[in-house]
Amino acid sequence: MHPGPLMKIEYSTRHLRLSGEDGFQHTFHAFWLRESSDAPGYRDPITGHKLQNANEIPLNIAIARATAGAERLEIEFTDGHRAGYAWDRLRRAAEHPISDELVGEKLLWDASLGIPRWHELESLRADPQKLLALLSDLARVGFALVRHVPAVNQGSREFLDLIGYTRMTNNGDIEDIKALPRGQHYDLSMTPRALEPHVDNPYRIPQPGYTTLHCLRNDAEGGESVLIDGLFVAETIRRERPDLFAALSTTPVVYRYCDDQAILENTAPFIDVAPDGRILHLRFHGRCDQVVAADPDVLDTFTRRGGCTPASSPRLRRNWSSSCSRGSCSWSTTTVCSTHGAAFD
Amino acid sequence: MHPGPLMKIEYSTRHLRLSGEDGFQHTFHAFWLRESSDAPGYRDPITGHKLQNANEIPLNIAIARATAGAERLEIEFTDGHRAGYAWDRLRRAAEHPISDELVGEKLLWDASLGIPRWHELESLRADPQKLLALLSDLARVGFALVRHVPAVNQGSREFLDLIGYTRMTNNGDIEDIKALPRGQHYDLSMTPRALEPHVDNPYRIPQPGYTTLHCLRNDAEGGESVLIDGLFVAETIRRERPDLFAALSTTPVVYRYCDDQAILENTAPFIDVAPDGRILHLRFHGRCDQVVAADPDVLDTFTRRGGCTPASSPRLRRNWSSSCSRGSCSWSTTTVCSTHGAAFD
Repeated sequence: MHPGPLMKIEYSTRHLRLSGEDGFQHTFHAFWLRESSDAPGYRDPITGHKLQNANEIPLNIAIARATAGAERLEIEFTDGHRAGYAWDRLRRAAEHPISDELVGEKLLWDASLGIPRWHELESLRADPQKLLALLSDLARVGFALVRHVPAVNQGSREFLDLIGYTRMTNNGDIEDIKALPRGQHYDLSMTPRALEPHVDNPYRIPQPGYTTLHCLRNDAEGGESVLIDGLFVAETIRRERPDLFAALSTTPVVYRYCDDQAILENTAPFIDVAPDGRILHLRFHGRCDQVVAADPDVLDTFTRRGGCTPASSPRLRRNWSSSCSRGSCSWSTTTVCSTHGAAFD
Repeated sequence: MHPGPLMKIEYSTRHLRLSGEDGFQHTFHAFWLRESSDAPGYRDPITGHKLQNANEIPLNIAIARATAGAERLEIEFTDGHRAGYAWDRLRRAAEHPISDELVGEKLLWDASLGIPRWHELESLRADPQKLLALLSDLARVGFALVRHVPAVNQGSREFLDLIGYTRMTNNGDIEDIKALPRGQHYDLSMTPRALEPHVDNPYRIPQPGYTTLHCLRNDAEGGESVLIDGLFVAETIRRERPDLFAALSTTPVVYRYCDDQAILENTAPFIDVAPDGRILHLRFHGRCDQVVAADPDVLDTFTRRGGCTPASSPRLRRNWSSSCSRGSCSWSTTTVCSTHGAAFD
């Protein structure tokens, strides 16, 4: 947007309306414009943080004069403040009110996604562009595969340190997951039972962001590993079964974990939806979730989720590593699987 | 609830209705009852996790027979499953669908709360009941005061290890906050500017749970420290200005932090509300928040928050320590202030 295709600037005291030849139009609020000022002295030059609180701006702030320049719109406000607004900045604020510059657009996927690419620890370490490619996979499809991570206890530490901070919990930071003798386990993941697709640790506040699984040794015959895009499932439900989506995103479910050291509990719907419609979190864990004893009519819809659980949705299946048969969702399917083998090639 | 005051059990195939002489009544859904079974073999005896997924239960599950016993209601389902339900458990499920056994009821407070009690590090270390009292303060009023923490760098480590896990961020885990020379700061907290009440790090996902502030040395003259109960403010707004509450809990705001190593950004409303009405998070940070360029009518309401910001609400003010003039809210006001001095006595 620049003054060329900009046809009209109209303003009253409280509103400023911009219309372009290409069909763009947006009405800006005078208070929004005043608060968005980046005039010298109004923002910290290093942090960009505002140096004035919104509540120091008069509520009746109005536009005294607006003038179109070549690069910027110049505005003088009734409190004497003057500021310039680059045309591009105004257009972006109107057309993309929610910034997405830090993460790419999410890709919803099913089994047609095919075999995901492998990332190599050595390359991630040596080449920032390779690391960016892995982070892009995480942001866009929700998981990434890494190999040649040292197959020793705590061997994933170096990889983890490349991409973020490990959250300490009552499980420690890196946990050894293996089947324990009967009576010693305190979680179904420590038994030889097959685990259905689920989201990890929905009973934690906050839920895990990314979960990493590092296969040191695969001593199982057969088996298969499954990855599911929870966002794809949720968006499909939203499109095809809006009544069910409403039930799953509003009916409280209690998630609970306990052992002799800790009780972890959260109450929340299966799906958290932001006011602007974005899906924020998924919580699907058939073993530790318990829907509340809500109104039977609500539960009538809620329980008909049967046909829509991830278990029946398209998914990636590979004879991959029996240690990796877990999915985790937060924002998206967020499993980082790191193996030293090549079972997925 | 026991069979004595229980007047009636009525059931159709899909519903079971219990009515008591004391006015209690609730209708349970057959699927909910079936899924809630804790019959032997249905739950892991150690973890309490279900051994059967909800999607393995027939969607048309119904009640074949219900029989009132002295201790329990016995139900036989149409798939042959039999289970007993303690009367107390059913009553609790109906009357308190959202469990609150792990944290006490929150207390909304203003300046009439008075001087909060001090906790002593030595006592917290020695006496689990004292530690429980501190955790109860955190859960109920959202903050706690601790003294006699070693006034040395990293001296709060032992206290932190008593109550939880320190989250590592790009700031490290324990950070030294002090005014830096002009040009070296990358956050307003590193300047000598007075900081208005705010919530810490609203640009992080997830937001901080608890923030601790440890005063090693107070070299300021005068000043005052302020604590505000964000939940009190939010509930007051909800009661007195429902239109404003709606705007603050639905209009997206961009929170952003950047330095030469990291860009942190989140987009979310000032107030996150759960589907059941609970307030989950507050995000108020007059310096780094920027409301989106939404519809001017929405912004008309949103910007009239001026009279309702925490800055104008009743609050605790004490000449306490100039290093502690920060409030943080998540679930509630969640500042743990630890000082070695006695300025608050």
